[in-house]
Amino acid sequence: MKTMFFPGSVAVFGVSDAPANLARVIVENMDRFKFPGTVYLVGGKAGSLDGRRIYSDASEIPEVPDVAIFLVPARGLAAAIDACGEKGIRRIVIETGGFSEFGDDRRSLEEEVLAIAGKWGMEVMGPNCVGIINVENGLVMPFYPVHPEELKQGPISIISQSGGIIHDLMMLCHMENIGLCKLASIGNKLMLDESAFLEYCAADPGTAMIGLYLEDIRDGRRFMDLAAAAEKPVILLKSNRSPEGREVARLHTAALAGDDRIVDEAMRQAGVHRVNGLKEMVDCFKIFSLPLPKGPRLAIMARSGGHAVLATDSAHRHGFKLAPFSDRLLGMLSEKTRAGVIKRGNPIDLGDIFDIDLYLEIAEMALREEGVDGVLIAHSYAPGDDASLTRKFIRSSSALTAAYGKPVVFCTIGHKVDWFDLRNVADLPVFGNVDDALASLSLSLEHYRNRTAKPRPSRFASSGRRAAAQPRLSPGFTPIEDVFGLLKAYGLAAADHRIVEGIEDGLEGARSIGYPVALKSAAPGMLHKTEEGAVILDIRDDAALGKAIGRIKTGPFLLQKMAPPGCEVILGGRTDPVFGPVVLCGLGGIFAEAYDDVAIRVAPVDAETAGAMVDEIKGGRILKGFRRKGPYDVKYLIASIVNISRLLLEHPEIRSLDINPLILMDEGRGGLVVDAKAEAG
Amino acid sequence: MKTMFFPGSVAVFGVSDAPANLARVIVENMDRFKFPGTVYLVGGKAGSLDGRRIYSDASEIPEVPDVAIFLVPARGLAAAIDACGEKGIRRIVIETGGFSEFGDDRRSLEEEVLAIAGKWGMEVMGPNCVGIINVENGLVMPFYPVHPEELKQGPISIISQSGGIIHDLMMLCHMENIGLCKLASIGNKLMLDESAFLEYCAADPGTAMIGLYLEDIRDGRRFMDLAAAAEKPVILLKSNRSPEGREVARLHTAALAGDDRIVDEAMRQAGVHRVNGLKEMVDCFKIFSLPLPKGPRLAIMARSGGHAVLATDSAHRHGFKLAPFSDRLLGMLSEKTRAGVIKRGNPIDLGDIFDIDLYLEIAEMALREEGVDGVLIAHSYAPGDDASLTRKFIRSSSALTAAYGKPVVFCTIGHKVDWFDLRNVADLPVFGNVDDALASLSLSLEHYRNRTAKPRPSRFASSGRRAAAQPRLSPGFTPIEDVFGLLKAYGLAAADHRIVEGIEDGLEGARSIGYPVALKSAAPGMLHKTEEGAVILDIRDDAALGKAIGRIKTGPFLLQKMAPPGCEVILGGRTDPVFGPVVLCGLGGIFAEAYDDVAIRVAPVDAETAGAMVDEIKGGRILKGFRRKGPYDVKYLIASIVNISRLLLEHPEIRSLDINPLILMDEGRGGLVVDAKAEAG
Repeated sequence: MKTMFFPGSVAVFGVSDAPANLARVIVENMDRFKFPGTVYLVGGKAGSLDGRRIYSDASEIPEVPDVAIFLVPARGLAAAIDACGEKGIRRIVIETGGFSEFGDDRRSLEEEVLAIAGKWGMEVMGPNCVGIINVENGLVMPFYPVHPEELKQGPISIISQSGGIIHDLMMLCHMENIGLCKLASIGNKLMLDESAFLEYCAADPGTAMIGLYLEDIRDGRRFMDLAAAAEKPVILLKSNRSPEGREVARLHTAALAGDDRIVDEAMRQAGVHRVNGLKEMVDCFKIFSLPLPKGPRLAIMARSGGHAVLATDSAHRHGFKLAPFSDRLLGMLSEKTRAGVIKRGNPIDLGDIFDIDLYLEIAEMALREEGVDGVLIAHSYAPGDDASLTRKFIRSSSALTAAYGKPVVFCTIGHKVDWFDLRNVADLPVFGNVDDALASLSLSLEHYRNRTAKPRPSRFASSGRRAAAQPRLSPGFTPIEDVFGLLKAYGLAAADHRIVEGIEDGLEGARSIGYPVALKSAAPGMLHKTEEGAVILDIRDDAALGKAIGRIKTGPFLLQKMAPPGCEVILGGRTDPVFGPVVLCGLGGIFAEAYDDVAIRVAPVDAETAGAMVDEIKGGRILKGFRRKGPYDVKYLIASIVNISRLLLEHPEIRSLDINPLILMDEGRGGLVVDAKAEAG
Repeated sequence: MKTMFFPGSVAVFGVSDAPANLARVIVENMDRFKFPGTVYLVGGKAGSLDGRRIYSDASEIPEVPDVAIFLVPARGLAAAIDACGEKGIRRIVIETGGFSEFGDDRRSLEEEVLAIAGKWGMEVMGPNCVGIINVENGLVMPFYPVHPEELKQGPISIISQSGGIIHDLMMLCHMENIGLCKLASIGNKLMLDESAFLEYCAADPGTAMIGLYLEDIRDGRRFMDLAAAAEKPVILLKSNRSPEGREVARLHTAALAGDDRIVDEAMRQAGVHRVNGLKEMVDCFKIFSLPLPKGPRLAIMARSGGHAVLATDSAHRHGFKLAPFSDRLLGMLSEKTRAGVIKRGNPIDLGDIFDIDLYLEIAEMALREEGVDGVLIAHSYAPGDDASLTRKFIRSSSALTAAYGKPVVFCTIGHKVDWFDLRNVADLPVFGNVDDALASLSLSLEHYRNRTAKPRPSRFASSGRRAAAQPRLSPGFTPIEDVFGLLKAYGLAAADHRIVEGIEDGLEGARSIGYPVALKSAAPGMLHKTEEGAVILDIRDDAALGKAIGRIKTGPFLLQKMAPPGCEVILGGRTDPVFGPVVLCGLGGIFAEAYDDVAIRVAPVDAETAGAMVDEIKGGRILKGFRRKGPYDVKYLIASIVNISRLLLEHPEIRSLDINPLILMDEGRGGLVVDAKAEAG
């Protein structure tokens, strides 16, 4: 992969001297950025462009280029790539569109390209992309114009499924004076996908943080492992959330989206920061260029009471607190400031005195406080004299944040006349909006907490493939007795039960179980038994059982000991096409549904994580005892979650598993599965 | 009030020729804006400023100015205002700070000022404010410099409790090319408050929409009535949400905040659009300058697949839908566009063709569709040729939005070189961020729906003061039998009950009620009876009752018929210091608490609103029948909500009322109050 970013020579296919030719833009980009390697031009019609020879095919090129870039019509592509293979070229970037993102009928072309690449042992990037930009060496592959004065070198690398988004991120970073390192547009990711580039960027010495725009994730577990292992912040804009968005994405880069909630949880588990838009991503780039806050306690400095109140509201909205100040700092504040008009405390209302040295002294005193994890400045000023003082304020704040290793978050509404200038004063990011700044600072705090938390099992890729001790389930809905059997093998007991066919063995079964019993249809695949009248509870004698069997009519029946009272819990999971086995738990009744109150994790889940899942359920306080009922056996629930996680990993054939309900008894008394369904694929 | 905005002459108090004098900035502002009236300068030391006479006090001024503006130390203020009264001046703006926002000990000064104002029949604005800016006549009162080239005239008026926020809003509007009309900084609002200015702006012909920044609301019901009656959009940034924010605000402008959730609901009832920050407010100014969308169906046009997916995600996030296109439009799209590379549909992926006339033709065809309520354009471009085409795109989009009366929401990431220029091309707002644009468009749709909804009772101010048929409750916790009696008078029956003192009358009572019964302590003010062991349920005979009385020990006791099974509901309300009587309902159990799942409204509440409250409770589906229980008597619940609303209005002495639980029976069978508490003040 390194040669893909640092090639000694590249060949651009599709060049002609026609003014509207797009491939020549690639050549012009490399020229503008003074790419030091050799650039060969190749086009269907041999000739020349600005005095440079256009070769008619790969075989003519005098050496073997490290990378071939294609912007030629899809139809002629396969043969040209094959010729590259013959020539010895092993890295291919296909910028051409019109592949599977356009329709399934174009998939065969992709397969053909894959076969050729396989034959020659090639690495393929794209198709439907704008390739790579490496700011370090001026390798600039997009077929739209890119200008050196708009692309500052810096520590941020970007991986994007859309070339248009790469363009806009470059523009946004230019506005905010953010430096970029490596940009990869991965398009339809026929071969090299987000994980391949994430792995490269995570190890790349020039990259300090990584932003991704993705419409789908190819191999969820590999992606999780790579992100979790990276010390660098990984910021993800994952689109394609809605059903309609999904349709567009399929068309665009043939994305098949998984369930968005699972993406959320998986990214949280991997320590990836998920954002909702480009502006939010750029705010993250800005905030992660500051030291991480080591806690939520902020000192807020504002130039009017209104700004102080708004900043305080924002701080609370995003999980921060106002740091209590030491008597020493409070004393200094009272002493330093003019008597009377504005009271001093946190937030510090700087009022109508614009004394920059005083501001800086206050900021430094606050940073020195042990109880202060960061300083937020909500500044406003008037153009003119104030503006040059403001520039000094920014420069000195930049020095302070470096000196104290704590974030100084500098916010100012600013002015049209110097909006962009202020962003070039220092390497300190300048925020226009306090609320946006604090939203991203909360991710920065989360990053600190993730990185300092004790290590967690983060080997998702390998743990997806465990061997099962039990035989695989057959495809389709699993018979209830087999589901109970499987659960029992993983330590989850069901209420005592028999499968019976009619009255005769029914009465016999009931006598051996002991009344009261419940009778349910045991027909596999009946999803809404209660609603279909196929559940009769609390049968207390033979006569009632006879009537019950008569009412449900068709066997087989599940005859079951009535469960003792307890708390109803749901527990289960499914195999997500992107992330594999996923475990879920929640309360029974309407809680899970009406309030979307379930906890979800990608398996494996250990006891600690299972405990966190239980804590996360908002209605979970019922489990700890409510209105003189409970506390229930939470330890048993936690063990069951861990066991279900193991079950799903060892039985990848299970598409979904639904235990509903598990009756959780009082503390120390375990639980009983009352009903469960499984579907294998 | 009109003269406050259009005075023939003003006097500025506090002027001197010292360079650091702030009052002279006021005079300079008026000069720069060519205020056509006479400006008199008044200062402690008579003299002159730039050749203009500084009068030493009010009596010297040769006429009676319409408005006196004060920026003098707080201590000398009262006497100076009194002198103005003597002179005949009837409108006073006090910009001076250091009043109650600084501490309660300064409140006496405010009272003194109020007394003087009362004596002379004066209107007072402030203190602790920057006064008025009227762009129509150049009346510019702030003591910070304001420049005509930064303040375009337009249809938006702003009322703000903070002068700093006024400043920043002017700067933000300048950046976005938004025109302003009247700005009022109301400070501590000793006399003239937000409602006074809202009333003026709602009637002002120059004002088409109103933005407010408030830290507290003085008279909630008057504010609601004024906002509900205004056809113009009213956008509110109400800060001071958090406990810590509250403390700051009290210090700043002596705000005493109400409960933030109640503010939310009250503003929703009044049709006020509440925002979280200044940027959001400015986005609203921009979106409300477009026609209101008449529905949620959007056509999305984007210049890359990535932008199309992101815009679609945003549309869903904010409650919009992708409009299905007619066959005619789809046919035109296929016909007009180059064969092959990008599929056409909604969203329309404009791909790599930058043909502005085609874009405009598509936009116009989409606007013509009956099923399209608005068009969102996610545009990107390169500076240079593309930029001039982009300007044409904006100009023509502006014409299209006017011609079709539907919003064309123009978004582009843009470029540093022409970021601000593009915003000056036409009166069409240009958004940098699709998600922000759609967030504000959702408020615009809400505004359309509010304005077209059938009229609702919106007389909150007068309906706060109804006469009670029943006697007022005495202060403190109301005895349970009186609470039951009051509820009965409003149509809410309690389970059959007796208050008993001991075993003897207890047994007698139980026999007359009939077993099973419940026994509870009837001590008023015991807030957690269950937790304190003072509730014993399901007592089935005399012996058990005897034991129960022995266990609770101290009477009086509430002996109550056990309620039949049903659904537990909570119902109640309280008197909010800002908005008066407020009604609340939710499910019993942990739902209301753990999920914050309650519906709240400012009273009065009619049956339709009460029905909306029930629908709003997320767990409320239980009421409609769940797992073969119910449906419950929702009609009775709705009637009870209306009755409680009436009760609270007629008993303003009630601080809080808590019916917990009301057992709601099956449909048609009503409900029974099992327990209730009331506290009067």
